Amino acid sequence: MSSDARAHGDGVSFGPIAIPGAQVFYETSQTFALVNLKPVVPGHVLVCPRRSTPKFTDLSDEEISDLWRTVAVIQRALEREHDTSSSTLAIQDGPLAGQTVPHVHVHVLPRRVGDFARNDDVYDDLERWNADGSKALDDDRPPRSAEEMRAEADALRALF
Amino acid sequence: MSSDARAHGDGVSFGPIAIPGAQVFYETSQTFALVNLKPVVPGHVLVCPRRSTPKFTDLSDEEISDLWRTVAVIQRALEREHDTSSSTLAIQDGPLAGQTVPHVHVHVLPRRVGDFARNDDVYDDLERWNADGSKALDDDRPPRSAEEMRAEADALRALF
Repeated sequence: MSSDARAHGDGVSFGPIAIPGAQVFYETSQTFALVNLKPVVPGHVLVCPRRSTPKFTDLSDEEISDLWRTVAVIQRALEREHDTSSSTLAIQDGPLAGQTVPHVHVHVLPRRVGDFARNDDVYDDLERWNADGSKALDDDRPPRSAEEMRAEADALRALF
Repeated sequence: MSSDARAHGDGVSFGPIAIPGAQVFYETSQTFALVNLKPVVPGHVLVCPRRSTPKFTDLSDEEISDLWRTVAVIQRALEREHDTSSSTLAIQDGPLAGQTVPHVHVHVLPRRVGDFARNDDVYDDLERWNADGSKALDDDRPPRSAEEMRAEADALRALF
């Protein structure tokens, strides 16, 4: 699907959440990538299998391959865009690992010098982050506006 | 290669570190898995492409597929063994993301109720963890003995 088609698409299902097409910036037959309501660092995006299932271990070999090949494509573009050669890649696979949306999602976070006081404070912020915004009251990061997310997705879509 | 052959193999290269075959518990043509000198939780293992390269984005599509399909195989076995259905999966891809050994490695950590006071304290421990033991002075976890690591690898090898 072309970027233009995607920009006007019907969106995707991310667990129980309907994600507008305007927030989806990359798609393959089995994978999609979306911008965040509350990114932990600039460029923090999520890459997901199209099929909504909670566990990485539920995915087929084909889904696994497509998911992680897509992560590499997106990571390369994000590192160029954010002028870095380091990224954190993580799946919180199950509730005891901090998963809040029951749909496999790879966190891709371009890392920069000094982005966190201690390197892995990034993960504390992942913990507080919640895709559906339900932890907003516990969190001093305000959710972004739909317009801001659309603009970021448009900019990311143009990288591919 | 059979488990028996592997148990008596010549080991693998993990960046600049020579890993004895006795610490490698699973291998495919393009991927190997090893036990840890300083596991953050019981069952914390590393899954690596056979080719020693620092960046996930350096891997070929075939290496990516084999790496992550192997992660799923190992994760399923570890979750059964540790009686959980949650795992943390992470790559610290580059020095600014906390990578200490310049060879792609997926951390696989079976998670249990109460294993960390805060769920994502697990990542603080990943940060202190260092495959070659060079941060031992900053770390209150003593490195494990070769015998202990061999015994764990033997037990893991028997799961497959």
